[in-house]
Amino acid sequence: MPFVNIKITKEQKPATPEQKQQLIEGATKLLQDVLGKNPQTTVVVIDEVETDNWGIGAKSVSEIRKKDTL
Amino acid sequence: MPFVNIKITKEQKPATPEQKQQLIEGATKLLQDVLGKNPQTTVVVIDEVETDNWGIGAKSVSEIRKKDTL
Amino acid sequence: MPFVNIKITKEQKPATPEQKQQLIEGATKLLQDVLGKNPQTTVVVIDEVETDNWGIGAKSVSEIRKKDTL
Amino acid sequence: MPFVNIKITKEQKPATPEQKQQLIEGATKLLQDVLGKNPQTTVVVIDEVETDNWGIGAKSVSEIRKKDTL
Amino acid sequence: MPFVNIKITKEQKPATPEQKQQLIEGATKLLQDVLGKNPQTTVVVIDEVETDNWGIGAKSVSEIRKKDTL
Amino acid sequence: MPFVNIKITKEQKPATPEQKQQLIEGATKLLQDVLGKNPQTTVVVIDEVETDNWGIGAKSVSEIRKKDTL
Repeated sequence: MPFVNIKITKEQKPATPEQKQQLIEGATKLLQDVLGKNPQTTVVVIDEVETDNWGIGAKSVSEIRKKDTL
Repeated sequence: MPFVNIKITKEQKPATPEQKQQLIEGATKLLQDVLGKNPQTTVVVIDEVETDNWGIGAKSVSEIRKKDTL
Repeated sequence: MPFVNIKITKEQKPATPEQKQQLIEGATKLLQDVLGKNPQTTVVVIDEVETDNWGIGAKSVSEIRKKDTL
Repeated sequence: MPFVNIKITKEQKPATPEQKQQLIEGATKLLQDVLGKNPQTTVVVIDEVETDNWGIGAKSVSEIRKKDTL
Repeated sequence: MPFVNIKITKEQKPATPEQKQQLIEGATKLLQDVLGKNPQTTVVVIDEVETDNWGIGAKSVSEIRKKDTL
Repeated sequence: MPFVNIKITKEQKPATPEQKQQLIEGATKLLQDVLGKNPQTTVVVIDEVETDNWGIGAKSVSEIRKKDTL
């Protein structure tokens, strides 16, 4: 019955449906392995966030990516 | 003053503005009826999540929907 | 399959288990009535937040409650 | 190490990247000034929500905006 | 830089610090393995929710647990 | 009308009511200054998370704090 929310930035090469399926499987299995939670009722929701809308170290990821390319 | 967040999958026929208005009214009324909360300051936020990004039973809803159609 | 998160302040008379059960039933029924969602897989999570930790109008609810009593 | 989530409505003139950068800087500085939190590991995520999907006072913001224009 | 939020019910035998450490490690590794995310900046937050405050199938988990014992 | 959620770890010296009031004021003012949002309807919710339940760099903050003291 757990609920898992995974927030990631939406990069130029966004996560594929296959990768999202792997995240869903992996998170569900983790809760089953560690706490014995029933995988049938485990819910996983993935949020993809624009790089303008995600900040770390007081800078948006868009700004950080610009500097990486210099 | 309550805050209600409703997460639903974004289906091929997504929820209409009228249905969303009904969810907002219904959730606000529920908090008023059960706990006497002031409807004027109750906030409701609806998140619509792509079916690739929602998993249950270790499968994405996109995968589950495919099998339903077979 | 919807997920509903209800955040309320934890007041001096906090919500009873019966009231919480009514919130769970009401939110689940709302999603079924408006969008035809399966009640068996609808998840509702209630967060009770200390009045020091909830702010509106730039004041914590603890501060607002103090003025109410004056 | 704090995590800050800012939810705003997506208006006709949505927030610009510069304004989002200001929100990220301001929230990070706030946690540093008040609690001494390390800005390098403070994460800020901004969610922009369609006005159909945000309700207050039992009405969607789309409905509220319509009346404002009358 | 991902952010993972895991919500579980707080059972009579709650998750131990060791199990929580395993959830943190497992979720961080999952994001690294599937999407190549940097583990150093991956944040995991675990919320433990009272069984009165978690509902599924229109019933609180407290109610469901009572019937399990009958 | 914005909603701001601030998640911080609950340290041995937890945030005081005064510091929480400063976070509420500061976050409300930030949204007013940057986006012209109405402070009267801005909601701020602070979540304090046990150090066992917060992970970064694949370690719980409890584990990280232990090493800091060595």
